[in-house]
Amino acid sequence: MTEQDGAGFAWPAGCRAASAFTFDVDAESCVLVNDPAAVDRMSLMGHQSYGPRVGVPRLLRMLERQEVRATFFVPGFTADCYPDVVKSIVDHGHEIAHHGYLHEPMRGISAEDEAEFLDRGLEALDRAAGVRPVGYRAPWWETNWHTPRLLAERGFAYDSSLLDDDVPYRIETSAPGTPSLIEIPVDWALDDWEQYAFYPGWTGSGVIESPLKVLEMWWLEARARHAEGGCFVLTNHPFLSGRPAKTHALEELVERVKGLDGMWVTTLQEIAAHAEEVCGPGRVHQRPEVRPA
Amino acid sequence: MTEQDGAGFAWPAGCRAASAFTFDVDAESCVLVNDPAAVDRMSLMGHQSYGPRVGVPRLLRMLERQEVRATFFVPGFTADCYPDVVKSIVDHGHEIAHHGYLHEPMRGISAEDEAEFLDRGLEALDRAAGVRPVGYRAPWWETNWHTPRLLAERGFAYDSSLLDDDVPYRIETSAPGTPSLIEIPVDWALDDWEQYAFYPGWTGSGVIESPLKVLEMWWLEARARHAEGGCFVLTNHPFLSGRPAKTHALEELVERVKGLDGMWVTTLQEIAAHAEEVCGPGRVHQRPEVRPA
Amino acid sequence: MTEQDGAGFAWPAGCRAASAFTFDVDAESCVLVNDPAAVDRMSLMGHQSYGPRVGVPRLLRMLERQEVRATFFVPGFTADCYPDVVKSIVDHGHEIAHHGYLHEPMRGISAEDEAEFLDRGLEALDRAAGVRPVGYRAPWWETNWHTPRLLAERGFAYDSSLLDDDVPYRIETSAPGTPSLIEIPVDWALDDWEQYAFYPGWTGSGVIESPLKVLEMWWLEARARHAEGGCFVLTNHPFLSGRPAKTHALEELVERVKGLDGMWVTTLQEIAAHAEEVCGPGRVHQRPEVRPA
Amino acid sequence: MTEQDGAGFAWPAGCRAASAFTFDVDAESCVLVNDPAAVDRMSLMGHQSYGPRVGVPRLLRMLERQEVRATFFVPGFTADCYPDVVKSIVDHGHEIAHHGYLHEPMRGISAEDEAEFLDRGLEALDRAAGVRPVGYRAPWWETNWHTPRLLAERGFAYDSSLLDDDVPYRIETSAPGTPSLIEIPVDWALDDWEQYAFYPGWTGSGVIESPLKVLEMWWLEARARHAEGGCFVLTNHPFLSGRPAKTHALEELVERVKGLDGMWVTTLQEIAAHAEEVCGPGRVHQRPEVRPA
Repeated sequence: MTEQDGAGFAWPAGCRAASAFTFDVDAESCVLVNDPAAVDRMSLMGHQSYGPRVGVPRLLRMLERQEVRATFFVPGFTADCYPDVVKSIVDHGHEIAHHGYLHEPMRGISAEDEAEFLDRGLEALDRAAGVRPVGYRAPWWETNWHTPRLLAERGFAYDSSLLDDDVPYRIETSAPGTPSLIEIPVDWALDDWEQYAFYPGWTGSGVIESPLKVLEMWWLEARARHAEGGCFVLTNHPFLSGRPAKTHALEELVERVKGLDGMWVTTLQEIAAHAEEVCGPGRVHQRPEVRPA
Repeated sequence: MTEQDGAGFAWPAGCRAASAFTFDVDAESCVLVNDPAAVDRMSLMGHQSYGPRVGVPRLLRMLERQEVRATFFVPGFTADCYPDVVKSIVDHGHEIAHHGYLHEPMRGISAEDEAEFLDRGLEALDRAAGVRPVGYRAPWWETNWHTPRLLAERGFAYDSSLLDDDVPYRIETSAPGTPSLIEIPVDWALDDWEQYAFYPGWTGSGVIESPLKVLEMWWLEARARHAEGGCFVLTNHPFLSGRPAKTHALEELVERVKGLDGMWVTTLQEIAAHAEEVCGPGRVHQRPEVRPA
Repeated sequence: MTEQDGAGFAWPAGCRAASAFTFDVDAESCVLVNDPAAVDRMSLMGHQSYGPRVGVPRLLRMLERQEVRATFFVPGFTADCYPDVVKSIVDHGHEIAHHGYLHEPMRGISAEDEAEFLDRGLEALDRAAGVRPVGYRAPWWETNWHTPRLLAERGFAYDSSLLDDDVPYRIETSAPGTPSLIEIPVDWALDDWEQYAFYPGWTGSGVIESPLKVLEMWWLEARARHAEGGCFVLTNHPFLSGRPAKTHALEELVERVKGLDGMWVTTLQEIAAHAEEVCGPGRVHQRPEVRPA
Repeated sequence: MTEQDGAGFAWPAGCRAASAFTFDVDAESCVLVNDPAAVDRMSLMGHQSYGPRVGVPRLLRMLERQEVRATFFVPGFTADCYPDVVKSIVDHGHEIAHHGYLHEPMRGISAEDEAEFLDRGLEALDRAAGVRPVGYRAPWWETNWHTPRLLAERGFAYDSSLLDDDVPYRIETSAPGTPSLIEIPVDWALDDWEQYAFYPGWTGSGVIESPLKVLEMWWLEARARHAEGGCFVLTNHPFLSGRPAKTHALEELVERVKGLDGMWVTTLQEIAAHAEEVCGPGRVHQRPEVRPA
């Protein structure tokens, strides 16, 4: 279990692997975008508002205790509804990044529509806290083949939505003049959604896992990526992992990850800035084609 | 794991946190309201009647052994069908609270319809055991924005259906003359439904969890809320957690929670009465609004 | 965890609780009855035939090693297709009981249709192995209010399909002249289906549990029922629990249950015969009625 | 747990049981065949391409460290898109076998259509790496009653898609002149799909299990089959089990299985060649028939 798998990524001097704790502050957006009538469900709206109102402050206290800086992906709608929460995240020294306006479903949409969602999200983050983000994460991690170009055109430094690698890499975006974008990949096994989410008439498989199971699974993954020289990117939602026992388990994980020898614990922005320096030519992604029979 | 997260709620002298064990005695109601034809399913009806007939007596014996008083949310239909069970709960010194008449789906209904369900439930509890409850829990924890006002108008002291905080708080209800209602929030991770419920042609994800897993998860949450000075509200259904091994695991949890230093173990009614004294001005809940594009 | 919950059932002298290991030998029936076209799915048919062809022999060897007699519920279709398997079960000294003809869905059907399924099942068990069963278990444990009468009219001594108690009891069947039937209740938490079943395009939640989790959960339940003087009835399907590691875990459970002080390990037939002697007047089951608003 | 269950299969001298680690390199095929529009989902396509691009190299390094030869089932589409990956698998000394062209759904299709998929797959493996496979595994393990004959006609030595036994056996295929085919059965409990697969809008129950749970479950099964003299065939998908912590857990399993006394760890091709020598007459599979009422 202590292999050197030779991912061979050149981390900064003294570091053998990297990790980032990220939070998607979806609040009500991810419910409302699919079901506008859910605005009448007072309990569900409260369940979602728990994220910015209660979960984020608890997570900020935890991160402060642990002296860790994190990345918060904030949909524009969250920024419009909870500007003080966004400012508080900034004031604690964390990174704010882009996560759509209303957590829009990006599947199959045109570049024009996607551009509009991107621009609305940028405007809202600026309006709420004067933030211009350098990072983007697609709602539901759903990207289109035109997404990297749209991001490069808007000056984003990195995306964190693809599930196709274990270390950051450069994407060839085909955007004229600004061809480069860093990708910092994610993994559904490193997301709290399918472990904890359950709400009748909205989402969930009906199973809510124990934070101890989740801690065990994520710790296995952190150790494996540390051993290989990889990149451990964890995604949590404050309305889920901001609840008491889940934050406690997450704090235990943060402590353990910090204790790994040579593990760089930082924001995605810093990982992207480092990757920008060391990554070679951009990878060209190709849409698969099925050979006719 | 022993942080002081500073929820800062003022518990009674000598107490640093609070907990309540609550039971929703749904019996057949939660099945019949969605599928009246299920009345012909003899096995399913028996599965549900197990709650009041077998589960409640076992749970009452357990609570007696543990010297704990609990809160039982009883739909009017259960009270009409099993009045002796309701009386027995009262005779054991526990609190009876309101849980709809037939566990009605409250989603999207008018204030008039909801008022009728509330009144029918009140009449049934009165008819069965002369009880006038001070607490309410919405079926499926589903509330509407008008729900708090309806409760205040009927003299309820508290609601326990929202999922938006970790400690009790006052709700501004906008009811003329009786503006105040205490909310004691709940959490899907502290409910036995999605851990244990499974019945073909009715409900369940197909996974029934081990009581040891559930005990572990709830104990984590109890310890986390104790450490933070929060409020641990557990919801069980007698047709599920009233079965032998599940009651045994629950008894183990009750023992552990009682053993936490400064943990107040009581009914929701007593927690609400205390909150009524110490909570500041009511929180105004606002229906979210999505900014036009 | 060592309470005496006073279920107060009078077990035979020297026994404080009872247990029965039961097996539903559904084979292809439970698939074909819902989807006749599945007969063309060679892999699925083989997956089901594994039950009688491979699972039952392995389970018979295990039961022989453990010197335990069990109850096998055999649909008529299984008896018609695998008569030698039925004979082998009989030759090993186990009980054969009734489980429908083709594992028919009993929900909402008329007494006439249900009677026909009962009679077809009886004919098949007689044809295959000259067996006249005294016990019945409804497919999917789905009974109708007329089911007890139909069973009593055919001379069945017991049913094992209801989920409304922890110990056997007498049912008032309203059948003229033969009013009595013993019920030996079951529990979805004591069934291997929702722990292990998964087959794309047929059934399953997508999660297959570890036999260690299942062993733990069932052992908790066995101990709880032993402590209370109850009845532990476990239901397994040979196409699931007849596979190697699952049978090993089951054997471990059988050994532990046998080791419980005063635990009577026997067939449902023997439990029913004992209950027939000690149970008081029959319980009258009543179809719930919802009070008009 | 150390029974000799007398499966009685004659393994090579010195061996008491056999095991094979197999990998289905589905890549994008299993998504695209059901939903051609998914080709526009950049993130999902990347999630699938992770298998050949990142998962396979990691697994090859792991197998090399463990000095184990494995069997890789490669759909023709994967071979067409990633020929270098196929060559690399061959160069590492592993077996390449057939897994359809585009992971076609075989349920209910004609022999003519199935033959065409088989031939397209053969052509692609030849085109990519000059490979002529001797083994076949049906996509989704879904076979038709004509499948064995089609395989025998094309000179396949074995199939590994049925779930009806624990040891290899000979199938009577009814193909004129080439009647024999070895079957090496599989088991859904020995597949990583329902343990790990989750992708919104594509697949999964919402639960992703911990690699520790999966390791425990598979190790139980390996020990049980070793104790009985059976055959342990494990199926993994590189886009799932090729991720860091999952490969680590798998490596731990490989080490343990290698350490079992007398356990033959090899490819399916070698198991089939041995079975060809020792298996008796072919088993005739019969399509079930339901007796008219």
